[in-house]
Amino acid sequence: MAFEPLFGENKIFYGADYNPEQWLDYPEILEKDIELMKKAHCNIMSVGIFSWSKLEPQEGVYDFSWLDKVLDRLNEAGVKVFLATPSGARPTWMSHKYPEVLRVWDNQMRAMHGGRHNHCNSSPIYREFTRKIDTELAKRYSNHPAVIGWHISNELQGSCHCPLCKANFRKWMQKKYQTLENLNKAYWSTFWSHTYTSWEEIDPPATMGEMGVHALNLDWKRFNTELSMDFCKHEIDTVKAVNPNLPCTANFMEYFNDYDYFNYAKIIDFVSWDSYPEWHVYKDQERTPIYTAMNHDLMRNYKHGKPWVLMESTPTCTNWRGTSKLKKPQMNTLGALQAVAHGADNVQYFQWRKSRGSSEKFHGAFVDHVGHLDTRAGREEIELGNKLSKLGEVAGSLVNAKVAIVFDQENRWAIDDAQGPCNNGMKYLEVCQDYYKALWKKGVNVDAIDETCDLSKYDVVIAPMTYMIRGDYAKRVEEFVKNGGTYVSSFWSGIVNETDLCFLGGFPGPLSNVLGIWDEEIECLEEDETVKVQSLCDALGFNSCFEGSHLCALIHAKEAQVLAKYDSDFFKGMAATTVNNYGKGKAYYVASRMDDNFIEKLVASILDEKGIKGPIDNLPLAVSCHTRYNDKSEFLFVGNYSDTAVDVMLKETYEDLLNGGNVSSQLHLEPYASYVLKKDL
Amino acid sequence: MAFEPLFGENKIFYGADYNPEQWLDYPEILEKDIELMKKAHCNIMSVGIFSWSKLEPQEGVYDFSWLDKVLDRLNEAGVKVFLATPSGARPTWMSHKYPEVLRVWDNQMRAMHGGRHNHCNSSPIYREFTRKIDTELAKRYSNHPAVIGWHISNELQGSCHCPLCKANFRKWMQKKYQTLENLNKAYWSTFWSHTYTSWEEIDPPATMGEMGVHALNLDWKRFNTELSMDFCKHEIDTVKAVNPNLPCTANFMEYFNDYDYFNYAKIIDFVSWDSYPEWHVYKDQERTPIYTAMNHDLMRNYKHGKPWVLMESTPTCTNWRGTSKLKKPQMNTLGALQAVAHGADNVQYFQWRKSRGSSEKFHGAFVDHVGHLDTRAGREEIELGNKLSKLGEVAGSLVNAKVAIVFDQENRWAIDDAQGPCNNGMKYLEVCQDYYKALWKKGVNVDAIDETCDLSKYDVVIAPMTYMIRGDYAKRVEEFVKNGGTYVSSFWSGIVNETDLCFLGGFPGPLSNVLGIWDEEIECLEEDETVKVQSLCDALGFNSCFEGSHLCALIHAKEAQVLAKYDSDFFKGMAATTVNNYGKGKAYYVASRMDDNFIEKLVASILDEKGIKGPIDNLPLAVSCHTRYNDKSEFLFVGNYSDTAVDVMLKETYEDLLNGGNVSSQLHLEPYASYVLKKDL
Amino acid sequence: MAFEPLFGENKIFYGADYNPEQWLDYPEILEKDIELMKKAHCNIMSVGIFSWSKLEPQEGVYDFSWLDKVLDRLNEAGVKVFLATPSGARPTWMSHKYPEVLRVWDNQMRAMHGGRHNHCNSSPIYREFTRKIDTELAKRYSNHPAVIGWHISNELQGSCHCPLCKANFRKWMQKKYQTLENLNKAYWSTFWSHTYTSWEEIDPPATMGEMGVHALNLDWKRFNTELSMDFCKHEIDTVKAVNPNLPCTANFMEYFNDYDYFNYAKIIDFVSWDSYPEWHVYKDQERTPIYTAMNHDLMRNYKHGKPWVLMESTPTCTNWRGTSKLKKPQMNTLGALQAVAHGADNVQYFQWRKSRGSSEKFHGAFVDHVGHLDTRAGREEIELGNKLSKLGEVAGSLVNAKVAIVFDQENRWAIDDAQGPCNNGMKYLEVCQDYYKALWKKGVNVDAIDETCDLSKYDVVIAPMTYMIRGDYAKRVEEFVKNGGTYVSSFWSGIVNETDLCFLGGFPGPLSNVLGIWDEEIECLEEDETVKVQSLCDALGFNSCFEGSHLCALIHAKEAQVLAKYDSDFFKGMAATTVNNYGKGKAYYVASRMDDNFIEKLVASILDEKGIKGPIDNLPLAVSCHTRYNDKSEFLFVGNYSDTAVDVMLKETYEDLLNGGNVSSQLHLEPYASYVLKKDL
Repeated sequence: MAFEPLFGENKIFYGADYNPEQWLDYPEILEKDIELMKKAHCNIMSVGIFSWSKLEPQEGVYDFSWLDKVLDRLNEAGVKVFLATPSGARPTWMSHKYPEVLRVWDNQMRAMHGGRHNHCNSSPIYREFTRKIDTELAKRYSNHPAVIGWHISNELQGSCHCPLCKANFRKWMQKKYQTLENLNKAYWSTFWSHTYTSWEEIDPPATMGEMGVHALNLDWKRFNTELSMDFCKHEIDTVKAVNPNLPCTANFMEYFNDYDYFNYAKIIDFVSWDSYPEWHVYKDQERTPIYTAMNHDLMRNYKHGKPWVLMESTPTCTNWRGTSKLKKPQMNTLGALQAVAHGADNVQYFQWRKSRGSSEKFHGAFVDHVGHLDTRAGREEIELGNKLSKLGEVAGSLVNAKVAIVFDQENRWAIDDAQGPCNNGMKYLEVCQDYYKALWKKGVNVDAIDETCDLSKYDVVIAPMTYMIRGDYAKRVEEFVKNGGTYVSSFWSGIVNETDLCFLGGFPGPLSNVLGIWDEEIECLEEDETVKVQSLCDALGFNSCFEGSHLCALIHAKEAQVLAKYDSDFFKGMAATTVNNYGKGKAYYVASRMDDNFIEKLVASILDEKGIKGPIDNLPLAVSCHTRYNDKSEFLFVGNYSDTAVDVMLKETYEDLLNGGNVSSQLHLEPYASYVLKKDL
Repeated sequence: MAFEPLFGENKIFYGADYNPEQWLDYPEILEKDIELMKKAHCNIMSVGIFSWSKLEPQEGVYDFSWLDKVLDRLNEAGVKVFLATPSGARPTWMSHKYPEVLRVWDNQMRAMHGGRHNHCNSSPIYREFTRKIDTELAKRYSNHPAVIGWHISNELQGSCHCPLCKANFRKWMQKKYQTLENLNKAYWSTFWSHTYTSWEEIDPPATMGEMGVHALNLDWKRFNTELSMDFCKHEIDTVKAVNPNLPCTANFMEYFNDYDYFNYAKIIDFVSWDSYPEWHVYKDQERTPIYTAMNHDLMRNYKHGKPWVLMESTPTCTNWRGTSKLKKPQMNTLGALQAVAHGADNVQYFQWRKSRGSSEKFHGAFVDHVGHLDTRAGREEIELGNKLSKLGEVAGSLVNAKVAIVFDQENRWAIDDAQGPCNNGMKYLEVCQDYYKALWKKGVNVDAIDETCDLSKYDVVIAPMTYMIRGDYAKRVEEFVKNGGTYVSSFWSGIVNETDLCFLGGFPGPLSNVLGIWDEEIECLEEDETVKVQSLCDALGFNSCFEGSHLCALIHAKEAQVLAKYDSDFFKGMAATTVNNYGKGKAYYVASRMDDNFIEKLVASILDEKGIKGPIDNLPLAVSCHTRYNDKSEFLFVGNYSDTAVDVMLKETYEDLLNGGNVSSQLHLEPYASYVLKKDL
Repeated sequence: MAFEPLFGENKIFYGADYNPEQWLDYPEILEKDIELMKKAHCNIMSVGIFSWSKLEPQEGVYDFSWLDKVLDRLNEAGVKVFLATPSGARPTWMSHKYPEVLRVWDNQMRAMHGGRHNHCNSSPIYREFTRKIDTELAKRYSNHPAVIGWHISNELQGSCHCPLCKANFRKWMQKKYQTLENLNKAYWSTFWSHTYTSWEEIDPPATMGEMGVHALNLDWKRFNTELSMDFCKHEIDTVKAVNPNLPCTANFMEYFNDYDYFNYAKIIDFVSWDSYPEWHVYKDQERTPIYTAMNHDLMRNYKHGKPWVLMESTPTCTNWRGTSKLKKPQMNTLGALQAVAHGADNVQYFQWRKSRGSSEKFHGAFVDHVGHLDTRAGREEIELGNKLSKLGEVAGSLVNAKVAIVFDQENRWAIDDAQGPCNNGMKYLEVCQDYYKALWKKGVNVDAIDETCDLSKYDVVIAPMTYMIRGDYAKRVEEFVKNGGTYVSSFWSGIVNETDLCFLGGFPGPLSNVLGIWDEEIECLEEDETVKVQSLCDALGFNSCFEGSHLCALIHAKEAQVLAKYDSDFFKGMAATTVNNYGKGKAYYVASRMDDNFIEKLVASILDEKGIKGPIDNLPLAVSCHTRYNDKSEFLFVGNYSDTAVDVMLKETYEDLLNGGNVSSQLHLEPYASYVLKKDL
């Protein structure tokens, strides 16, 4: 991948969602907006999200006059624009006249007009309305000098149970399975007599109908990913028909569970996402930055490492959580630079200015109801704008990761739906983060990928709970290890195929060879229950007592070597962690949800063995360290997420991009401080 | 306001809901009822609630014979009657034949027959049935010597989503806003493209439709207040057409959230309400009496101080809570006299006799299933009847309050719906009660009012969290302070206008002048989080460390003087409490939810300054003290809500109305004891 | 009752649910099944549950070829069969073509196809389809040498709100009450004007309609018991029309609340049930065995002591609980022998082999996905099969109990629905188990019966919370005590009749004479609240302080003698436990939910007085001891449910049936160990 800034310019873009259509009666405010944008060093705005009522106030009657002025004014001020298609919400007149544009819920009742992100993805009428308005927008603005990309719809999500969607689902299944016999076998539908004898008999999963055919549930999620992609593609095709060169994105969401983004990302040109971390909520100050960091790493890898756009975030607080906590001083800067550290070329916010009314009027914004930037938040926004303006050379740089963590969306769907062994919550994401956390604390770059991604470019692949083995994943794992890679697996791996059929003949199924174990059964512990685990020093390099929790696979080491044993309960003495030498590589299996201490030690020993180390040793609590690089330089991002000042030791001399001058050896970090350092390559 | 007993007689009425229609097959029980009423000193019964099936057993076929006998029998026994219109529940035949009398729920499905209080307020059929039965009742009983008032329907509540109600809602909006442009601006409906282009497009808020246009939600609540009032007025007009002199009431409920009672009370002649405090449930023995006291003070002020009727309460326990706790000995008497202390001229119960079957058969009553009054509860009921018979001169006396607390129903709706800053619960009522509690513990009379009420008659007005500024409220606050009043405001005040549009230019919006501060932003604390606050001795007269919780406004004192400062978190050093000298008065602003200790000290210093004091100093824990007065006397009500005996010191000599004789200096209070003392004026 | 093995053979049957229809594509697995069944000593399989799609793949097209082979193959292997009718789930084509076979839910919407156990019990179409397939099955297999009984449908449950069911309900009420006047009186429907004036007006209870007429709610439950029985009888009649000698069962469930099994059991030939205890979940190791033991005792008494079938259980874990905990080593054996100890002649499991897919693929089975029995669970299954094969003579033996505990399903419905005195949960089952626990710890056999059962054969009857007095129960209690029996009653007894109408004239209503007390009122304690109770040594034989919780009846001893008094709260000094000498017997009344210590002492003193003792004294914690007997021998079952090894002292010499040889005096019990000992009579 070349080192190319996303939008051709060597700058980190800085801006927000901008909704001037709400303020057309307040011309003085629109004037003030431009003045304040300049003051805050803003150079990009997302315009037109939810503007349909203003663009097409009556059916077929378009009004672009206000938007003409807005775009021209922004252009004059040097502010670029992501122009949104307005399909995230529809005008009231449309729902009223054509109720079929609205979604039918799981309870089989059609929604009434309201909210947003709830159109039917199949509706030909909605698609036609969308095509028309998108075409008008594209014709008028595709070549506008301010516009650098399309923001397709908004936070696409969900599913619809209307007859059209049901029919599309049946077509999708027919295409996939060809015959009902194939489908019935794949669905194991003989169970409870659920055999289908005609395609018409298949309804989507529904609370008042069928919820227990897990392969059907999985296919419904896959279908809805593709149906939403199809809708999005319909919009992309529409706007690209006018100007094929303007890139398109669709803003993604936090560990989003409705769709498989690794699939979804194929139809967009660049990834963008809306990130709202829960800063300052948890006593554990590492929890939120780690949770967010892994999400950033996922976003980057949806497009295989390409820089991406932080499309939404808040400068102060959200208004839709239980508690609307403010970001403490410098937290907004730290959060923004965290995104850049993980590959973002843009830092954008929802929203430019707080609306006067309706449901998000108390959501944080650049400009508060007071109307100026001489506020605590405003001053930090201006300062941040200034800082970002110094980071132009970072744009287009990439992240080099030798370690990957596998977090697979289809696997996540399957695990959560499978009924057993822990219906209280399988904690797939939490277990992945146990390992991610150990890597983060080492200051090591990580790629978050899924089972479809290329493994061969990594030294270490950590893949907890790969319950579902998709496609040729197991083969690729074998090759990866054979060729010298280190693979880390865990309990609840290698259980089912892609239609949730269990592997026969012993778990971990197709991973049995590479892992060298047999997983006989799995014990689920109560929420407050733990088991003791004793590591074997000679094998693992460390010796101590640890705790396992959540789930305990009861395994038999076959070819594998035992590294740690259970030391309590009826399975005392059985293997708790193993390693298998396979080809030139090694494959680990961790049989329980081990405590942080164990995972940190295990990860450290693996990194040591592979010679992987971060740029700073012995990172203090809640201090992060990540790098980007291009053909000339490496950029080192250091951030302190704790409320305590600390020092770290640099191993080399760096240029301090934000503050000027050079730094070396000791670097002092005030609470929530962040640094961007550069060294030449 | 003149000192007029509500029903012309110098007596505190004592009685219950009476449902003889349930016992027509048991003539011996009906006889026994009269005997027991006399024994218990009862002199009023509410009759006819839910009797429609017995009054009109088939459509158009009326049977009043049983009611004739009941009313005559009561009259002979000297028992007066509130005669109910039966519209609180309808006969099954009516629902069956005319399903349109039933309500359509938020899920857009029409209710089936069942329950009660669930008719459609718009239904012409229901109104016509109601008109007919009410007319029959009025013709037959309007001049019956026992009947002294109308009890209209029962506990009117809720809303309906049927087409008729929707049409009425649209008419109501049309009348209010005249044009859709006005409505769209007031609703800020450009947000999420919710602009309305025809009146027909506007649906009431609904879970399956629109819930996020807060001004629409507010208008729906206002409309339903007025629609229910219109239904109630329809009944009042019907019965008054026969005898315009018989006063009407509609029984209100505890801190009721469906309707705005300050508006509702306009159409009734006197206020009555159904009070079911949770006695003995909380370890904090002050919680329930204080919560109930403020509700009594609200009820009195719905009719601007006029005496009112305790329409329902229970002599022993309810049957619809999680736990049905019994009132301990003397608690029933104490609770009854609390109502009288706060202005009640009647003490009535649900119910006279426990029903044999159906859903309230285990709700407390005068007469238990055992059928006599020789029970623990029965003996106390007789004793209470005897006590109330000694308080005839209290009837018609008023409450003199120099302090008012503002608890505004429209503001409450708006705060709870606004999304942010604390969706876990904004605690408007709780914060108002923080201040009410400090006043209650001082033994000071308080009026609970809303933003529409006259402020000029008070010395002190405490108005926490006036998020929504209604009409000319801010102007009236300015005048009040200018003229020497002391006003206490808090965080989350002066944020929006009546359609929930934020004030631009800085909070607290129109209260900025009088408060002399700028409220820049607001921090929400987690449930277990607090901040330190340091009072400034020289300014406030006391010096200590306190705690703030819940929400912290981060304010700038402009004209105001700082009285206390935050002493932790990133806003350490910022003002936590201010006072602004404005005209002849003072306006306080308390920026966080301060602990009891702080509020008690602040309130004490304000009362001291204004020379307001209660009749007893140093009230022990959970002891109340309130007064009523007329042209001749002051009546002092003292009650001990704790399980511990205590003494209080009287400052003067009083006549002991319940026990005879005089008391002065030390007054001993057994657990749950109550006294009514009198002194001449 | 004669000592007859259920199926004529002197053997404890051992087997599982077997679903070969899921594996027809895997002939090698079907072969392997037979081999493994032999290995595990299995001799019975339940076949055909949920096989409808395979038996009738299209409407009217039957395919029995696969089942022919399965039954023949089982027969050849010496494995008997319970043949199921397939009505527990229907083919998709049927739901699709005839949606009326599906149930209408409480929300008045008809289910879509999916799940199981959700057909309409009234649907003539479903009954006709069932009749046809059942007839085909009966014709083909009624005389098959492998088939020893019918397994009718599966886990029959629930209710339906379709027009047909509503019409049937109305007919049922009409038959019961004859006139609407009778019904209205029985329902106390004057309350809230709910009087019915035509049968058509009566709808079943529904959330969107009527839920507050408790007698209607009760009748709806009674009706649904009978409607389900009628459906089940329809199936029984169908199969018995072909071979009237093949016995039928319907598998029951854990403390099932939908139907009254004492009534239901009348139509089946033998009882079977599905038992899934929560082993190893609670820190209190006695909780689960005691809870399960009483359920076994109920099952046995549904057919008045006749041996019964453990139809389903799991060898390892379930997959539908929050946590799927494994059974620890020997727990499966212990659980199986517990069932036998309480009267089971069969030990069967769900399921023979784990399905590859769908919602129960992770439910424990004889054969795991690995496909062999060389697993921890498999080895114990083989060992258990071997053990059971040594217990042939136990088959047909009975349980002799001198103590009965009354747990009445109609009473349970009524208590839970009555609204008050503790809507947080009346804990009827828990309170019954307080007493059952004391008996279990004494190693005394107990019958669990209901109010309709014969009391005369017991020495002691313990009947807590008999809120509803059904039929002549009170008279039979009087006779029982008069004739020398000891009866134990508690708070919340003798309150209502069978249509939930309260007894007038004083509680405990018709039990007042025999108990000799008046129950004036009842106090409900908060969850964390207790009262002190002081026993009176001279009366009760022990003297100490105890605690009452939950509910406290405030009673007056009339003829009864006071045994313990409340020692706190306002009712300090009132009677907390009484005994009444009545005829030759005694009637106890325990006024509160007393602590374990009190109940153990009270029960011990009663057992002492009646000379009832178990075969082992001083049982250690969590060790059980129960007996069966026949004309020749007594079988003693001892089990250790704790994780600690203990010893018990035998009083006699026994033959050790499982291990061979004799044992006497000290018997050592490893954790989860179980013994079956025999002595001659």
